Amino acid sequence: MVPGAVLLAPPPLWAAEGASSIPNLLLVLAAMLIAAKLLGEAAERIGQPAVLGELVAGVLLGSSALGIIPSAGLSGEFIHILAELGVILLLFEIGLETDLKEMFRVGTSSLAVALVGVALPFAFGLVYWLFAPHPGANTVGGELVTAAIFVGATLTATSVGITARVLSDLGQMHTEEAKIIIGAAVIDDVLGLVILTVVSGIAAGTAVSVAGVSTALALAFGFLVVAVGLGSFVAPKLFDFIDQLRVRHVLVVFAFAFALTLAALATLAGSALIIGAFAAGIILSGTNQFDSIESRIRPVAGIFAPIFFVSVGSSVNLNLLNPATPEARATLVIATVLTVLAIVGKVAAGWAAPWAKFRRGLVGVGMVPRGEVGLIFADIGRRTGVLSQESFGAVLLMVMATTFVAPPALKALFKRTSDTAESKPAKPPIHEHKDLE
Amino acid sequence: MVPGAVLLAPPPLWAAEGASSIPNLLLVLAAMLIAAKLLGEAAERIGQPAVLGELVAGVLLGSSALGIIPSAGLSGEFIHILAELGVILLLFEIGLETDLKEMFRVGTSSLAVALVGVALPFAFGLVYWLFAPHPGANTVGGELVTAAIFVGATLTATSVGITARVLSDLGQMHTEEAKIIIGAAVIDDVLGLVILTVVSGIAAGTAVSVAGVSTALALAFGFLVVAVGLGSFVAPKLFDFIDQLRVRHVLVVFAFAFALTLAALATLAGSALIIGAFAAGIILSGTNQFDSIESRIRPVAGIFAPIFFVSVGSSVNLNLLNPATPEARATLVIATVLTVLAIVGKVAAGWAAPWAKFRRGLVGVGMVPRGEVGLIFADIGRRTGVLSQESFGAVLLMVMATTFVAPPALKALFKRTSDTAESKPAKPPIHEHKDLE
Repeated sequence: MVPGAVLLAPPPLWAAEGASSIPNLLLVLAAMLIAAKLLGEAAERIGQPAVLGELVAGVLLGSSALGIIPSAGLSGEFIHILAELGVILLLFEIGLETDLKEMFRVGTSSLAVALVGVALPFAFGLVYWLFAPHPGANTVGGELVTAAIFVGATLTATSVGITARVLSDLGQMHTEEAKIIIGAAVIDDVLGLVILTVVSGIAAGTAVSVAGVSTALALAFGFLVVAVGLGSFVAPKLFDFIDQLRVRHVLVVFAFAFALTLAALATLAGSALIIGAFAAGIILSGTNQFDSIESRIRPVAGIFAPIFFVSVGSSVNLNLLNPATPEARATLVIATVLTVLAIVGKVAAGWAAPWAKFRRGLVGVGMVPRGEVGLIFADIGRRTGVLSQESFGAVLLMVMATTFVAPPALKALFKRTSDTAESKPAKPPIHEHKDLE
Repeated sequence: MVPGAVLLAPPPLWAAEGASSIPNLLLVLAAMLIAAKLLGEAAERIGQPAVLGELVAGVLLGSSALGIIPSAGLSGEFIHILAELGVILLLFEIGLETDLKEMFRVGTSSLAVALVGVALPFAFGLVYWLFAPHPGANTVGGELVTAAIFVGATLTATSVGITARVLSDLGQMHTEEAKIIIGAAVIDDVLGLVILTVVSGIAAGTAVSVAGVSTALALAFGFLVVAVGLGSFVAPKLFDFIDQLRVRHVLVVFAFAFALTLAALATLAGSALIIGAFAAGIILSGTNQFDSIESRIRPVAGIFAPIFFVSVGSSVNLNLLNPATPEARATLVIATVLTVLAIVGKVAAGWAAPWAKFRRGLVGVGMVPRGEVGLIFADIGRRTGVLSQESFGAVLLMVMATTFVAPPALKALFKRTSDTAESKPAKPPIHEHKDLE
């Protein structure tokens, strides 16, 4: 054995090659945060939810405008992972604020809204794509059917992150409609993952069996049920024990580690990061340390969640909106039809639970934003070649339009319907919520 | 122009190749945080500062033991950057708790301690290396002198992060000695960067001029003076304005962005990330929103700072401690001598300011841990070939030993000297500080 080999230590991490890019990365992060808050403030001043400003901040800093946010390389990867931490923290916080009993109470309404909100847009997209004019490739035979299934699948998505932030920005998280929307969006996310598995299989050309789909469904929902069931039993005792430890910050660090663990386990079980983080929040909302955890997690989520929304905004390509060529104009027409179908399909889902009493238009509009979930679907279609560049562009425009149209629409609907007092009264206006910070 | 090119959007970040490793990364992070808190708790139970437990947690999870923390690849890079965010948040928090007037009051003592604490260990290391037996290469002529300069330089480092955490763990941040130590450690860090520039030049074989060294010195200290001077003038007005904004979390997000920006600017000006973060904290400690900012930054720092300490611990190679071969035993002997010189040189610096009254042993011991700064120096020596693998191993053992010996020594000294009430009385014991969390 060579003595040198015994003595050889691994290179210190901070001396790695990429280290010189850290100052640039920090400046990009600072720019993202400052732009998010300034445009969020501007959005609130013109009567819109702050998250709309954060999305616009992302568009402005993104590669099709100022080009400040890197979309590739080590810095791009790092911002992507920080954005994931942001959405994990956001859903964890939303879970902490969620009352499980209330979720069960509105459970059947949520389920009905989710199922109709998946089925209708899927059918709309499938049928439209089979008969619509298609620029670019994939216009005949089996390939057309595959592309149509893909477009339908993309229309089923709902971004629970965007919807929840809008509800939170508006101070409406405790309304009946918010509970139904969050529940339906979570169910929709789980369904979306199953659909994604199936659609990816179709795109890859592998056979899709009923048994395979059933297994994916069982795994995804099974994780949620087992995690919340087991967690609600174990977590109160675990956190009573942790609370007795005297080392500093022990509660908030364990709570954060708990959210990270459940997010990771959810993914490994075939569900999604954000479903695990949401489950972690719901579980910890039943502990005695709930208040301490929530008040300390809030500033952490407040710092990282905007990175997610700015990152979502930065993936928007402004060039798609430039009708310079006939082909681009054709794409814009298709995108417009898709957007209308996407909105009608989700809004109609608001009428899916006739036995319950709630503001149906509000719930339907709450399901409209496709956000990052829609982007993931569309991107798989593009990378596997199922969607041509033109088709991908049209789908992307639909995702963008639904994401940007929902926040102001929700705001307007909450304002109008709370004036007529159809349901629970709305909370006080936003700026009085600042003390919650 | 091809229509497809107009429509082509950049790939969404979350669909990048590395995405599948995110669950694993989250589990590693969770393991780091849980191990940090459990071993931190264990350290406190046996009467040691929590940071010692976090370092041990890193050793256990590191590549020479359990191998859970990746030291390379995308995950390794990501943990490295998160660790940097952790140390930025830590120094920002320490800066927020620092009273600039108090720093100026003890400034001459800090400067004297820093200068002697750099000069003595450098001289000790240089002279010893010229005459010591050396396993491996680099034993003759000019190469020996270069290596000796390098070893001397490595002995000059002080880890302000580790020392500050120990002082904070012990609830002693407001003592006279803590102020002198923090001031001296910051000056030492700035000096260290200048030395690093010079030594890197020597290692690369380039000529080192007095003008070059003076420029590096002026840039590094100049940044600190200009940033704090200008910042103290501008920041109060800026944050009064920000405080009037009504969007949620605006204060903590701007404060964090401010710390990131100054950390980046410090690096670009030839200083260090942590100096910039510390300066940002000092500047914001003079704003009217200081209390709100500090209480909201604290849980964020509480989550991320342990990632830094666990990361430092994970770069320790346990194999170095295995005296299996004669060469390894020879290295252990050299490492022991280096450690003694490293400790004596820094402890002696405690007597550097005879005009001031403070517990000199305490201040000297506070300067002992080399931590991450020493590791950076050692690694440059290894990569440039100035230090042989054996010499690198010996230097690394010295860095480890000084880092691990300081926390318990400081704790013991604070306990003993506060009993005899030589200086200000010590604060109440640690567990009563939990309400500070």
